[in-house]
Amino acid sequence: MTGNKIEIPKWVWDFHGHTCPFMPIGYRMGVLAMKELSIDRVKDHGAFAFSEMGVGHPQTCMMDGTMAATGCTYGKLMMERLDYGKVATILYAPGKGAVRIYLRSEFQDELGKFEFFAYRKKGIEPSDIPEDVTEKVVAKVMEASDEELFKVEKLPDFTFSRPKGSFAKVKCSNCGEYVFERYVRMKDGQPMCIPCSGYDQTWVNVLKGVQ
Amino acid sequence: MTGNKIEIPKWVWDFHGHTCPFMPIGYRMGVLAMKELSIDRVKDHGAFAFSEMGVGHPQTCMMDGTMAATGCTYGKLMMERLDYGKVATILYAPGKGAVRIYLRSEFQDELGKFEFFAYRKKGIEPSDIPEDVTEKVVAKVMEASDEELFKVEKLPDFTFSRPKGSFAKVKCSNCGEYVFERYVRMKDGQPMCIPCSGYDQTWVNVLKGVQ
Repeated sequence: MTGNKIEIPKWVWDFHGHTCPFMPIGYRMGVLAMKELSIDRVKDHGAFAFSEMGVGHPQTCMMDGTMAATGCTYGKLMMERLDYGKVATILYAPGKGAVRIYLRSEFQDELGKFEFFAYRKKGIEPSDIPEDVTEKVVAKVMEASDEELFKVEKLPDFTFSRPKGSFAKVKCSNCGEYVFERYVRMKDGQPMCIPCSGYDQTWVNVLKGVQ
Repeated sequence: MTGNKIEIPKWVWDFHGHTCPFMPIGYRMGVLAMKELSIDRVKDHGAFAFSEMGVGHPQTCMMDGTMAATGCTYGKLMMERLDYGKVATILYAPGKGAVRIYLRSEFQDELGKFEFFAYRKKGIEPSDIPEDVTEKVVAKVMEASDEELFKVEKLPDFTFSRPKGSFAKVKCSNCGEYVFERYVRMKDGQPMCIPCSGYDQTWVNVLKGVQ
């Protein structure tokens, strides 16, 4: 599939798991952002992608496309969500600047009319939607120009540095498992991991689906 | 590269961006977790991977491997960090159960002796480490048995459901961009996006590197 001469490698679809229109939107967003900053795909840790998306809404698939295009992966801690519920991404490369790309509201409106989303609203999973229905909406994305798709904004004052990394770790006095130092808690005078300490509510929040 | 007959497709390395030992550890962790739950790779939204890793420490590359193996991608909202700073992952498939897999402390100790980590501690990026140094530590991972690598624990009481999704969105009265309803804020009687409302400190926290 091509559009503005952009081709999405097959492995990107394999990674994502299903065919949908928002993964390619995210991929194209990543490609355009790299072009705006004059950078290549990141092998290690040279750029950060901040997605303005959140949870509890569709279209987050975009993030998989952006990770694949830019190399700013979640595992390398180069992608994070800002949880604004907006279809936009900021790409920042130290020394090169930052750019914000928003999927134009007009394009969001046009896209929403495609049959693909009627299926999605009924709760039908992308891989169960008839192929020709999916193809049409993906073609719409791939054939649009960057100008039709995106609003581009340079962020001259944007800066970010990730938390300093440390290899230091200790064993939890309760379960005996290793914990990286930043996450060690003290309880009854002993170092513990967060779940053993009982201090943190993250676990409970996850179980409750609280964000 | 094989180990216990596991082969990591080339695209997984392409996605990740560099060669390192923790991506394959995460991949193997994902494969084993799927086996424990008797599930296949997820095309859409059938399983959740909760990584116990956090920020500000190494080895998070593991998450990219687990996303690739299981199909529980960050973009599909099927992977989240629990921020415990532990080298472990929970895989949960509704109706199939949950399993927690921890990289054995003994294996973490053994791995830490490899020259690869001497380079990493000096701040040298994985793609700049001599290939033969990287190959040795990756081979160590790929040749180890599941038993040498992992502690496996079933979590019979684990349950989770993600926040109900909604397609509803409104335009921010200030910037005019679309916002998914969950993230709309009210200011001066008008619906606004979080950055325009000025209510949320997420942005500031990100800039400060606060977690």
